[in-house]
Amino acid sequence: MQVWKDYQEKNKDRFLDELKDLLRIPSISANSANKEDMRKCAEAVKQRLLEAGAGKAEVMETAGHPVVYGEKIIDPSKPTVLVYGHYDVQPPDPLNLWTSGPFEPVVKDGKLYARGSADDKGQVYMHVKALEIMNKTNSQPTNIKFLIEGEEEVGSPNLEKFVADHKDLLKCDVILISDSAMISLDTPSMDIGMRGLAYIQVEVTGPSRDLHSGVYGGAVANPITMLARMIASCHDENNHITIPGFYDDVINVSDDERKMLGQAPYNENEYKADLGVQSLWGEKGFSTNERTGIRPTLELNGIWGGYIQEGAKTVLPSKAYAKISARLVPNQSSEKITAMMLEHFKKIAPEGVTVKAENLHGGEPYMTPIGSKGYQAASQAYETTFGKKPIPVRGGGSIPICTILERELGVKIVFMGFGLDSDNLHSPNEKFDLANFYKGIETIPYFHQFYAQQ
Amino acid sequence: MQVWKDYQEKNKDRFLDELKDLLRIPSISANSANKEDMRKCAEAVKQRLLEAGAGKAEVMETAGHPVVYGEKIIDPSKPTVLVYGHYDVQPPDPLNLWTSGPFEPVVKDGKLYARGSADDKGQVYMHVKALEIMNKTNSQPTNIKFLIEGEEEVGSPNLEKFVADHKDLLKCDVILISDSAMISLDTPSMDIGMRGLAYIQVEVTGPSRDLHSGVYGGAVANPITMLARMIASCHDENNHITIPGFYDDVINVSDDERKMLGQAPYNENEYKADLGVQSLWGEKGFSTNERTGIRPTLELNGIWGGYIQEGAKTVLPSKAYAKISARLVPNQSSEKITAMMLEHFKKIAPEGVTVKAENLHGGEPYMTPIGSKGYQAASQAYETTFGKKPIPVRGGGSIPICTILERELGVKIVFMGFGLDSDNLHSPNEKFDLANFYKGIETIPYFHQFYAQQ
Repeated sequence: MQVWKDYQEKNKDRFLDELKDLLRIPSISANSANKEDMRKCAEAVKQRLLEAGAGKAEVMETAGHPVVYGEKIIDPSKPTVLVYGHYDVQPPDPLNLWTSGPFEPVVKDGKLYARGSADDKGQVYMHVKALEIMNKTNSQPTNIKFLIEGEEEVGSPNLEKFVADHKDLLKCDVILISDSAMISLDTPSMDIGMRGLAYIQVEVTGPSRDLHSGVYGGAVANPITMLARMIASCHDENNHITIPGFYDDVINVSDDERKMLGQAPYNENEYKADLGVQSLWGEKGFSTNERTGIRPTLELNGIWGGYIQEGAKTVLPSKAYAKISARLVPNQSSEKITAMMLEHFKKIAPEGVTVKAENLHGGEPYMTPIGSKGYQAASQAYETTFGKKPIPVRGGGSIPICTILERELGVKIVFMGFGLDSDNLHSPNEKFDLANFYKGIETIPYFHQFYAQQ
Repeated sequence: MQVWKDYQEKNKDRFLDELKDLLRIPSISANSANKEDMRKCAEAVKQRLLEAGAGKAEVMETAGHPVVYGEKIIDPSKPTVLVYGHYDVQPPDPLNLWTSGPFEPVVKDGKLYARGSADDKGQVYMHVKALEIMNKTNSQPTNIKFLIEGEEEVGSPNLEKFVADHKDLLKCDVILISDSAMISLDTPSMDIGMRGLAYIQVEVTGPSRDLHSGVYGGAVANPITMLARMIASCHDENNHITIPGFYDDVINVSDDERKMLGQAPYNENEYKADLGVQSLWGEKGFSTNERTGIRPTLELNGIWGGYIQEGAKTVLPSKAYAKISARLVPNQSSEKITAMMLEHFKKIAPEGVTVKAENLHGGEPYMTPIGSKGYQAASQAYETTFGKKPIPVRGGGSIPICTILERELGVKIVFMGFGLDSDNLHSPNEKFDLANFYKGIETIPYFHQFYAQQ
């Protein structure tokens, strides 16, 4: 509607300034030192919701960081859309690789750089501003609720209980999530699936104390060497994962779906150039998009042990550690795979070392049906503002809370991600293209319109 | 001599207090933040030498940390002994594993705990106090010179030039080094060889930036996984090192020498219990003492990459690093093996990653002949104070400067190490048994006596 467009045009600089204010708050959920920043950020989100026209907004307690709830009910007989998002962000390290401060947002070449710009404050804020536009132009077609949590980046440990305890408050007809990416503004796409996650930490202990590598080297199993052997054994020569039973529950994607997913544009040379690699890597028999979309994977997220400062220290360390995670596809169970991984790493411990393994984080894979009312309304909204139908894709990332939201609230989820894969999520120099931010704000009201019309 | 024994008995508490003062100075050569502590420590060593009776003592400049030189010439016609040692120490981390501060020396159960207590301040101080005893009792049999450097723990980068520039000053008949261990006070032993060292750092780069492990995982080579594969490939199933040519220059030790070295007492159960391991590890076909003495080894000293803080971060990192060192045996060249290792790690880089490798530290292996005047005088000294002949052993550690000292000064080195393998060198809770400290002070004057008599 022209009135929406005009309102956004008149207020777009303020929208950006407000988002920048939100990005200045270092709401790092993983770091206990940022506890007060977390609360400050929750209060700011609540305040913005009220300003945007929410009839009610509250910071609500959990056993961890608080949840922000907001709502604008226009007519109980109309359909209700629940927007889920998160105000917490990933830790910004390694800090030295940022070209500007992670919590000092700056716009360069039309892109807004800051931790959380795309994941997920910027995308949450599209919905807050869409509410404002519809509200201030008296054209809100649906009831809208907001559930903005503060623990997504640490696995949403307290959200399940919160949702179960507040089913009435959160009652809705569809859930809308903008916490993922699209292919590009030229080629809009919508996620129809998210991979699950099983994230563990492995601790390998050799001798009970750090040793002099000259005095003991060669006579005692080195925990770093042993950990390396364990990691190296996790993929075979075709880069299949070797953990027994790992693929048991994977349902092979039909040729038809592979064909449909294969329509997403992909240019291998551009992909390689963007990542700065000479050649790609992955499971034999699958394309790059399949490797990141429909296949489970096992990645090393961190490793450490021994002397890691400047210079040389001739130590044979007592311990070495790794953070290891698997991405899971539909029908794989995070709990089952986590147990399998914990068991596997203990089982393959070489002689001379002992291995402890613990679960750090997890979430189930999720699929949303293309035929649903929600998906169709979103698809129509994209078509209206982009001039073309979005391509359905399987996203590689995980939003562990999806399965829980669907189960507790009994409704389907629609993913309207407006970020790009190249947004440096979880990396230094995270950014969000302003064109995507504004396009998102433009598209979201149409979703509500088409959804209300169905 | 009774007069030596009486002097030590009367002054032993002061000797210990003085050593504690020296240990309170955090002379960490690897850390540029400790530059002023290094100088303070050098000045303290100089002062102690003067107090002990040195006719001359100086702090002398190098391009790095200064060298302390001292001497007590009693008669130019008598033989001259050069004592080499170092006043620098290894970094104390990981700090959290120390039961008392690394630079707050304390005595517990007859053991002096502090970084540098055994390696090497405590052992250097035995020589300073031996000088004092001989000097104050007018019974010094030889001329004594001291060369106490501040860069041993970082590979003595400036000592070669210093020695070459000061050949006249350092002119001597034999070099005496106390920077290693003995088997025990019950079983005295003397090192007849030291292993060489080649220490490199490897950097593996995958994508040019840190990536989201969900969005890109499975499609791009993970540098941690690739580094693990490289490390795992460095030993075969018999724990032989697989780097081509690595063993080419190793001279197999004769059965006779193996038999002689085999006389050192060794109790596998005690060894395992001390290290807290269920089973030992090492190159097939060799005993534990052979693995650490006469065989070259390859050890991982450190590894890091990706997210290594608390909690879970789903990152596919851009880089992973390892510190890797080899211990070398006589006839292997540190330079040659270093070049071989640098080349090897670049060559085995898996597809999809690039590898950089750099030399950090190195030193040649060294052997000293049992038949030399110096060795025989030392052996006699041990026999006098311990009541039994020391067993000749091959030490696993490295004192890289040995080869250079021998070449530049044209004399042989004698190792009189009074530490124990269990002293936690380079580890948390480094200690030096006071019984060993005092036994060293008792034994050293006899070396000078017997050496002067030959």
